[in-house]
Amino acid sequence: MRKARLEAFSDGVIAIIITIMVLEIKVPHGQKLTDLLHLLPIFLSYLLSFIYLGIYWNNHHHMLHVATHVTGAILWANLHLLFWLSLVPFATGWVGENHFAPLPLAVYGIVLLMSAIAYYILQSLIIQNEGSDSLLAKAVGKDWKGKLSPVLYLLAIGAAFFSTWISGSLYIFAALIWLIPDRRIENMLKKEDRE
Amino acid sequence: MRKARLEAFSDGVIAIIITIMVLEIKVPHGQKLTDLLHLLPIFLSYLLSFIYLGIYWNNHHHMLHVATHVTGAILWANLHLLFWLSLVPFATGWVGENHFAPLPLAVYGIVLLMSAIAYYILQSLIIQNEGSDSLLAKAVGKDWKGKLSPVLYLLAIGAAFFSTWISGSLYIFAALIWLIPDRRIENMLKKEDRE
Amino acid sequence: MRKARLEAFSDGVIAIIITIMVLEIKVPHGQKLTDLLHLLPIFLSYLLSFIYLGIYWNNHHHMLHVATHVTGAILWANLHLLFWLSLVPFATGWVGENHFAPLPLAVYGIVLLMSAIAYYILQSLIIQNEGSDSLLAKAVGKDWKGKLSPVLYLLAIGAAFFSTWISGSLYIFAALIWLIPDRRIENMLKKEDRE
Amino acid sequence: MRKARLEAFSDGVIAIIITIMVLEIKVPHGQKLTDLLHLLPIFLSYLLSFIYLGIYWNNHHHMLHVATHVTGAILWANLHLLFWLSLVPFATGWVGENHFAPLPLAVYGIVLLMSAIAYYILQSLIIQNEGSDSLLAKAVGKDWKGKLSPVLYLLAIGAAFFSTWISGSLYIFAALIWLIPDRRIENMLKKEDRE
Repeated sequence: MRKARLEAFSDGVIAIIITIMVLEIKVPHGQKLTDLLHLLPIFLSYLLSFIYLGIYWNNHHHMLHVATHVTGAILWANLHLLFWLSLVPFATGWVGENHFAPLPLAVYGIVLLMSAIAYYILQSLIIQNEGSDSLLAKAVGKDWKGKLSPVLYLLAIGAAFFSTWISGSLYIFAALIWLIPDRRIENMLKKEDRE
Repeated sequence: MRKARLEAFSDGVIAIIITIMVLEIKVPHGQKLTDLLHLLPIFLSYLLSFIYLGIYWNNHHHMLHVATHVTGAILWANLHLLFWLSLVPFATGWVGENHFAPLPLAVYGIVLLMSAIAYYILQSLIIQNEGSDSLLAKAVGKDWKGKLSPVLYLLAIGAAFFSTWISGSLYIFAALIWLIPDRRIENMLKKEDRE
Repeated sequence: MRKARLEAFSDGVIAIIITIMVLEIKVPHGQKLTDLLHLLPIFLSYLLSFIYLGIYWNNHHHMLHVATHVTGAILWANLHLLFWLSLVPFATGWVGENHFAPLPLAVYGIVLLMSAIAYYILQSLIIQNEGSDSLLAKAVGKDWKGKLSPVLYLLAIGAAFFSTWISGSLYIFAALIWLIPDRRIENMLKKEDRE
Repeated sequence: MRKARLEAFSDGVIAIIITIMVLEIKVPHGQKLTDLLHLLPIFLSYLLSFIYLGIYWNNHHHMLHVATHVTGAILWANLHLLFWLSLVPFATGWVGENHFAPLPLAVYGIVLLMSAIAYYILQSLIIQNEGSDSLLAKAVGKDWKGKLSPVLYLLAIGAAFFSTWISGSLYIFAALIWLIPDRRIENMLKKEDRE
């Protein structure tokens, strides 16, 4: 019951964040191809952020799926995560409007880094609540993706001031490692079903 | 359970997309009839896109209704569909603001085409998962609407550069064929109930 | 199941409509009382529209509560209602920005009138589906509010061109009659419980 | 059932309010650190309002969790609360854009005060409906936070015209007292479970 409402609220906030980002792609006044091409950096940064938010929604979905209890601390850790995610449209718009300039790219990374930390806190609280023998604890396991991502964000933040290409590539790479299907929880669930 | 959250998230995103589109109809500064009539092309493009998004929500609703399992791949195929749908307000605003100019009309068609392809991928993944004997596989059947629509979009994209009237009419026609009540799944459900 | 998703989608759209309306109250650049007072007509039109959307949500909520089946036609009638409601923020913003000028006031009434008609169509389809002996059919009964409202809107649309005060008052009056608690469905439910 | 839809609608509205607030943080045209630092007051006011809305969502969540019946009056009291909360983004944007000037700070307090009163009305209606022996009545108890907050808002509104620092500090303090975990309802629930 309480979990259902936490999920519904998170779904709502993430759905709105993902959708208002598109408002940054402002309708051009002209009607030529150059008017459209001018929007390319904004479109690309939108695409990347859409994928990031999709990853968060997906992971959030899986994590809550195996959680059984929701405490007050978990509610606040979840709001903390949503706070940082809510800044993604701002960072995305800034990156896009400035054609991947150094400082916007670094700020983008800071928002991603803080989101990753917030997610880690939420995950830790849920695991602590569920117990180390829980389905979630086993499923998360060593969580190499969760540990590698913040390192990549840190590298990308630093790289932004030397090469925006390297920085941008690191953000793309950090997204791609999450797109590789994460069969951990799915496998655990199938195993449980079989037993 | 997992299906419920997929539906809730999709409902949220489509509800937001459909509603933020109306933000493109900017409140005019004047208070005369000419100020209002000036908005007519924006209003008409909003109406058409509202119908398209309504069709997608309706079909998505019916399709998920008969689906029984949701996999990680289905979650991503669904996000892929939502990505293209999220670009509808941009394309709609561009078409409306430029009074149905060729390039905006063609871009509108590209967004519709990509959405149709994304829907097809999602549908195929769900059918593959449910099995060819499933309720959905039977209900979708030959899916002539799903096959005709992309062809109409392609024709409309090409026509946009010769006659915007033909192009616009094709988009309207492609919407109308979906408005004819699609009794496929409803009939299947009734049949199941009777047996 | 299907009803749940119809409710969820309608809730989402109405929640977004009600909230994006507030975006019309643009943050003033100044920080004086006159800057705030300047926003008074926009604030008042927002308040009235908030109440109207609240009434629609409430009535929609009660109506769906007693509905048992949802058909394809009902889904479309519901989308038709949401379409007209989605134009409320535009009409509200236009009325507020022009300090209750005649044409904006009339357009506001047209949007309310079309919404009322759309609601009537939806209600009729549900009653037709439920049967004339159904809980909803009995609860709606003579539906004097539903019949009086469109008349008041028509009067207000006409009055807008002679006296904006009379027109505005009629809109307020038409809202107030709905605020009188509508115990019809609640009473029916209590009765059912007792039997 | 009816409670579920009330929760869903409230979740939707609060989720949208919390997210559209971020639209006030407008993407700067420049790409320098000074462009970003210029946004600091807007960011800080966003952060504070995010916490306030988080508190409201949390408390609303807990309150509805133990409520068993929903009446028409409760639906309207809930809409009344959502109305005042919907003005938070406007007040937040005004405070941020004017760097915590007196009048915006006072208006911010008025919106918080009216929200607190609306919440109190909603809570009283639910308790009245549940009975004084109900879980909620016991859990709320003396409700010192609910009684202290309006006093703090009133003080902050008055202080705004003398010292914006004192006023701002009072708003922060009033938020902090709610962040102290409110174990009342959680403890009641645990107790019930044990018995």
